[in-house]
Amino acid sequence: MAEARGRATDGLAEAAVRLADLGRDLHARGWVLGTSGNFSAVLSREPLRLAITPRGADKGRLDPGQVLEVDGAGTAVAGAGQPSDETRLHLAVVAARGAGAVLHTHSVWATLLSEAHAAEGGLAIEGYEMLKGLEGVGTHEHREWVPILENAQDWVAAAPAVEAMLRARPDAHAFLIRGHGLYTWGRDLPQARRHLEVLEFLLEVVGRAGRRA
Amino acid sequence: MAEARGRATDGLAEAAVRLADLGRDLHARGWVLGTSGNFSAVLSREPLRLAITPRGADKGRLDPGQVLEVDGAGTAVAGAGQPSDETRLHLAVVAARGAGAVLHTHSVWATLLSEAHAAEGGLAIEGYEMLKGLEGVGTHEHREWVPILENAQDWVAAAPAVEAMLRARPDAHAFLIRGHGLYTWGRDLPQARRHLEVLEFLLEVVGRAGRRA
Amino acid sequence: MAEARGRATDGLAEAAVRLADLGRDLHARGWVLGTSGNFSAVLSREPLRLAITPRGADKGRLDPGQVLEVDGAGTAVAGAGQPSDETRLHLAVVAARGAGAVLHTHSVWATLLSEAHAAEGGLAIEGYEMLKGLEGVGTHEHREWVPILENAQDWVAAAPAVEAMLRARPDAHAFLIRGHGLYTWGRDLPQARRHLEVLEFLLEVVGRAGRRA
Amino acid sequence: MAEARGRATDGLAEAAVRLADLGRDLHARGWVLGTSGNFSAVLSREPLRLAITPRGADKGRLDPGQVLEVDGAGTAVAGAGQPSDETRLHLAVVAARGAGAVLHTHSVWATLLSEAHAAEGGLAIEGYEMLKGLEGVGTHEHREWVPILENAQDWVAAAPAVEAMLRARPDAHAFLIRGHGLYTWGRDLPQARRHLEVLEFLLEVVGRAGRRA
Repeated sequence: MAEARGRATDGLAEAAVRLADLGRDLHARGWVLGTSGNFSAVLSREPLRLAITPRGADKGRLDPGQVLEVDGAGTAVAGAGQPSDETRLHLAVVAARGAGAVLHTHSVWATLLSEAHAAEGGLAIEGYEMLKGLEGVGTHEHREWVPILENAQDWVAAAPAVEAMLRARPDAHAFLIRGHGLYTWGRDLPQARRHLEVLEFLLEVVGRAGRRA
Repeated sequence: MAEARGRATDGLAEAAVRLADLGRDLHARGWVLGTSGNFSAVLSREPLRLAITPRGADKGRLDPGQVLEVDGAGTAVAGAGQPSDETRLHLAVVAARGAGAVLHTHSVWATLLSEAHAAEGGLAIEGYEMLKGLEGVGTHEHREWVPILENAQDWVAAAPAVEAMLRARPDAHAFLIRGHGLYTWGRDLPQARRHLEVLEFLLEVVGRAGRRA
Repeated sequence: MAEARGRATDGLAEAAVRLADLGRDLHARGWVLGTSGNFSAVLSREPLRLAITPRGADKGRLDPGQVLEVDGAGTAVAGAGQPSDETRLHLAVVAARGAGAVLHTHSVWATLLSEAHAAEGGLAIEGYEMLKGLEGVGTHEHREWVPILENAQDWVAAAPAVEAMLRARPDAHAFLIRGHGLYTWGRDLPQARRHLEVLEFLLEVVGRAGRRA
Repeated sequence: MAEARGRATDGLAEAAVRLADLGRDLHARGWVLGTSGNFSAVLSREPLRLAITPRGADKGRLDPGQVLEVDGAGTAVAGAGQPSDETRLHLAVVAARGAGAVLHTHSVWATLLSEAHAAEGGLAIEGYEMLKGLEGVGTHEHREWVPILENAQDWVAAAPAVEAMLRARPDAHAFLIRGHGLYTWGRDLPQARRHLEVLEFLLEVVGRAGRRA
């Protein structure tokens, strides 16, 4: 049972509607099937507050009332459901990147590539115009390195290492977790969504191109 | 012609609407084309009553009025259409698992894998985070065995063997019928749907991964 | 310019709405892109009258007012647009099979398989449960032979040979034209649509299975 | 900041609605993800005025108010956003072909083929009925050559070479930019859209067929 919680930060209701809309779209594309994936948006920085989708929710039929508010320790402070353990990864991305929104999806191509390139610890994507959809990338000659992390059972324990990896690779716009999917982020929800579409597109291109070889 | 039938169990109308909505979604994904597939939900346990889609219905344009009620012998007790022969498989799943909803779909990837792995009698899926979407699975290190049964012409005759297989493999969340598609289930319709999305996703991943080899 | 035309047969307006709805669905699936494909439904047998989609129409945005009525010679007798040359193939199917509706689609998998199997003059599909969605097929052990015809420039000239082929192969539920797509039919529009979904599904299965070899 | 701009040419508002509708459809198909792609329609020839989608817009959620009007030099003359650098390519197509609408998309198959065939400088598509959806093509025996250009950083500088290429290949209905996607056009927006659907279909066919080899 959820303990009694406090009053929601301004903006939670609006963020919840936007996350529910996003969920419907991404579910239709097959990127968050089976209650996989989770999405967050920063509501305030001081104190840190995130709107985030709850554990085990069907992203294609998300009711805005299911979206939680959590604090900087990942504790639910408003809303009725329970935060997922992966809330810690959202907080790690917000801390390391100053992101305003974090999106975790679970597509077929991300899953396949996260396995196929696990031994190298990441995946290079280079030479595609679509890369210019990543913030700060001005040329298709850019080489984007997408780190691949091993999957974990305990994200509370593993989150500091993820945050350290993000600080060590300040140019990365995303990372994959092996057999588990993609994390990306942005200044705000539209930018995070743009990054997500760019990366899911590129993962499909790289995945299909790999088969030609 | 259907014989005169009795009064529907409470909840049939609501279950029928939910099965029709589900049909529209799954048809749009291409998982129940050409009147394939069938869906059921338990209405009562004592006596056993199921809401179930009728034989030969287009799942993308299902009218809730087409959904039947059947008893524990698979006999229609309310509604106008005829039950499919595969009603017996739904009843076998309900008997062996205590399921509250059973979903049978017919996707391209399920069909391909049911043929490709028929000789081994099943398919192992292991190492994917998405497996945690299956009830009771707490780690991606789980190894899910999906039994593959030979297709049959007479499910009245074959259903006891299916029920026995389900009792012999209490951990299985689903099975495939060769060249025919997937059966999965859950405590209720949302859980059955979650299992379906998890499994269809994983079958596509395994199917595409197999081509890389 | 269209000559002055007569009064429409009863049922044209209703058939036109149904063909337009069908077009929207099939276009969304990518089966009739770029104004490809055409659909017809028999309005009367004596005299023979068909509702049919006109030449060059966008099937995803078909206005029911664009649907024509043609007679047994393929001449437009009501409606404003021009009949496609392939109207003759619809008439050949109606003559040889007594079909009440004929659907021609143009999917990626149909196109690929019509080329890959052209030398054999057809494609066998066998062992799949989905085959039972074809009228009169009672077992998945059925072997469906889908003839593949060479493409032609002049269907007025080529239609008699197509009709003869259909009479020579009374069991066929469909045929492919090389590099051009699928024709299937049914007693009425719902049955023709069921056959279409069954066949497009099976062509994708066969196409993807072929790559495993 | 945008400088003060003038009064819009008649027809801008209507063209903007049509481009926004088109964007929604093409985004749903995955052809303009991540703000990729851009669309234009000629509003007047003397003086030359184009309605065109702005830099960095999400094509799936385009508000008609975001669509700009530019002159023959690519300078914004009405509307609030900034024109993309690729506006020059739209103008090159309008100049060389007299096109009334130009569509640039960014699909997975276009990207893959633009890389796979870059060394040959183009891609031949031949023998498919769908080719007859290209204006002026009367037979499936047509051989369409789709030129592939190297990607560029500066389209102001590169546009004259593109225009020269288009004049040198008066039969081409489209071109690919390496790693970047497809440009096609038409007399008006419906014809440009027809060409787009025809070409995206054919690129998928050619891409999948290539894997069989």
